[in-house]
Amino acid sequence: MNDPGFDYAALFRKDVAEPGARWGGFPKYNFVGGHNDPFQIPVDGLIEAAAVALRQEGRNLALYTLGHGPLGYEGLRDFLAEKLARWRGIGATRDDILITIGSGQGIELVNRILLDPGDTVIVEEFAYFGALAKLRKLGVNIVGLPLDREGLRPDALAEILEDLKRKGVRPKYIYTIPTIQNPTGSILSLERRKRLLGLAKEYGVPVFEDECYADLIWEGDAPPSLYSLDPERVIHIGSFSKSLSPALRLGYVVAGWDILGRLIASRTDSPGVLEQLVVAEYFSRHFESHIKKITKVLRDKLDTLVEAVEREFGTSVELWRPKGGIYLWLKLPDEVDVRDLVKPAADAGIAFNAGPSWAVDPDAAKSYLRLCFALPSEEEIRGGVAALAQIFFEHTGIPAHGANVRKATVG
Amino acid sequence: MNDPGFDYAALFRKDVAEPGARWGGFPKYNFVGGHNDPFQIPVDGLIEAAAVALRQEGRNLALYTLGHGPLGYEGLRDFLAEKLARWRGIGATRDDILITIGSGQGIELVNRILLDPGDTVIVEEFAYFGALAKLRKLGVNIVGLPLDREGLRPDALAEILEDLKRKGVRPKYIYTIPTIQNPTGSILSLERRKRLLGLAKEYGVPVFEDECYADLIWEGDAPPSLYSLDPERVIHIGSFSKSLSPALRLGYVVAGWDILGRLIASRTDSPGVLEQLVVAEYFSRHFESHIKKITKVLRDKLDTLVEAVEREFGTSVELWRPKGGIYLWLKLPDEVDVRDLVKPAADAGIAFNAGPSWAVDPDAAKSYLRLCFALPSEEEIRGGVAALAQIFFEHTGIPAHGANVRKATVG
Repeated sequence: MNDPGFDYAALFRKDVAEPGARWGGFPKYNFVGGHNDPFQIPVDGLIEAAAVALRQEGRNLALYTLGHGPLGYEGLRDFLAEKLARWRGIGATRDDILITIGSGQGIELVNRILLDPGDTVIVEEFAYFGALAKLRKLGVNIVGLPLDREGLRPDALAEILEDLKRKGVRPKYIYTIPTIQNPTGSILSLERRKRLLGLAKEYGVPVFEDECYADLIWEGDAPPSLYSLDPERVIHIGSFSKSLSPALRLGYVVAGWDILGRLIASRTDSPGVLEQLVVAEYFSRHFESHIKKITKVLRDKLDTLVEAVEREFGTSVELWRPKGGIYLWLKLPDEVDVRDLVKPAADAGIAFNAGPSWAVDPDAAKSYLRLCFALPSEEEIRGGVAALAQIFFEHTGIPAHGANVRKATVG
Repeated sequence: MNDPGFDYAALFRKDVAEPGARWGGFPKYNFVGGHNDPFQIPVDGLIEAAAVALRQEGRNLALYTLGHGPLGYEGLRDFLAEKLARWRGIGATRDDILITIGSGQGIELVNRILLDPGDTVIVEEFAYFGALAKLRKLGVNIVGLPLDREGLRPDALAEILEDLKRKGVRPKYIYTIPTIQNPTGSILSLERRKRLLGLAKEYGVPVFEDECYADLIWEGDAPPSLYSLDPERVIHIGSFSKSLSPALRLGYVVAGWDILGRLIASRTDSPGVLEQLVVAEYFSRHFESHIKKITKVLRDKLDTLVEAVEREFGTSVELWRPKGGIYLWLKLPDEVDVRDLVKPAADAGIAFNAGPSWAVDPDAAKSYLRLCFALPSEEEIRGGVAALAQIFFEHTGIPAHGANVRKATVG
């Protein structure tokens, strides 16, 4: 008899995703994703924070959300209200802050309350892969907003908004990462922020501000957040993934109750409370010192990476030197499609993020790539970049010299 | 000028949920939901476990998923493989286990890969509110499977399956809580388990087994899990919410890669790693002793609750005495609609779960209610039941006596 128990294939829903490969661990040279520096995790501090927080609130683990309701642990929201006031100019109380499962859940939920298939959103031409992937899955029309080294271009935004208005289209939001843009690492000036918000007001379009990297700045000023300049019209999200740990899965949304109340009503999962307790306790005492320390380490790693890239790639590469964060955005010569390099690099134990995944128009970013420099050691940065350059020169046929002579060999 | 920044109303998606009320805290007598006993949280043990686990794995918090991939922390999956083998007869390895954000995410994801609107599922007539709510939201046809004091009735299932087959309908799954049913607290016998699985095989329908309460048993045997009896045809989920803490948001799915791989591919959020580390460390050493302790406390609380209910409600109430877990399922006289009592009870500081939310056919469960006895103290149980009985007698006009004379007054 044919055993129907094996017959899941006929039972899956129509558009089910196929299973991927089983997890195979990290490559030797890992420049992908948003991992951080293992040696900057404040292990002792977290152990102490866990003890203090559990001693104080441990019994309440018996209650869903500690009994603090759907916005999340009050202690963490209080810490955030203070931090956001002090560092980002934001005048929010704990009641304006929703703790989420990383900033990813924030994006997921904001989309869930605002977007129907066929809606239009405006997104910086190079943008966070996760945000783009979610929008594509929703069948939303994504209009790319041109960037330069200073961030989004208000002049281009004005044209886009006017053009959409002529077509009778009111975009659902303008998604931007103004403070340490992902992937380009730029910081939007106060003047551009004001022009952006002026246009948002003029055309009646909310701004979706993603500040996941705003804690990690080493160059230039960080103007006040967009939310602080126009709380009514801006939905603000942030994360502890980059400032402390991506494994903890904690982010937040700052907005009014008309937004937060709907995010809560449409969400099915909430973040774990132990992580909220520990982060609140640790960062309430050590936020500034931790940020100072990790920022210095990241800046040093960036210097190492830039030096290695310039040494190994010579004039073949164009750098977007970031003012903070954990990524370097690079451009190879126009004739190169980095997607062709992913497989040979992987075979050599190197993982990088191909630019097309970080772009509204993938083909227009075919010569770009993104390197995360937070996880690898300085030695791994040097070794990995040398190995990647070797693959680049081998597979593109571009000669390994130029204005600079290529000096290093692969170690 | 009209400020368009306030104009979110025109931007929300078509079927957006309205914001609920802001969180107002817990009522005095809280019998709702799945909260647990605050005094059974092993605070010292968790502090120690956090220190050990962070000392060992802390640096890896810099890596998404600790670098352990999308299934979750290996140490927790190893603990689960051992626990499930020892206590539930399950022969799974760490590679067959996916850690989820509570069992709720497991249900959400299983639905996401199996169900299209208009599909049919079979669900026990009284069932977990969360599972029912998700199915209703998906526009799925829910067929209620009759229960008796011993759990689901295989004879009724045979009829349902045959009837659906005649209509050309192949149900996507049979959802059951066989071991400490929610809300009735029954344990399905081995013989019924085998008949259920025989029918599942005959009709080619997978079984979705929810064992969230299976760790908390004080009466009768726990036959092997359905998964252990037929791993090919059963998707198994469980949780740490009831055995340790609902605030931690940790559950799991046990299934083959054809299922797990698709669950991963369709999920957007993963559980936090700190919680996984701490639970793995704590339960690897203390699972059995913790369960023994909490089970005894719960049993004593149940005795207190049953005594109070019998004293206060007299012959007006019919009890489904549970063999474990944290809930008591009650039936009031047929003419009572408990939905009419929710508001007056809330006004008196009492919260209970109305039966209709826990039923495939809400109206058929209008005289039922569910009381969670894990959170309130024995004193609160007695006081809350007395207060609830007073409201019941006042609002239904049913005289407060019967075979038993009502002895207590509200304190």
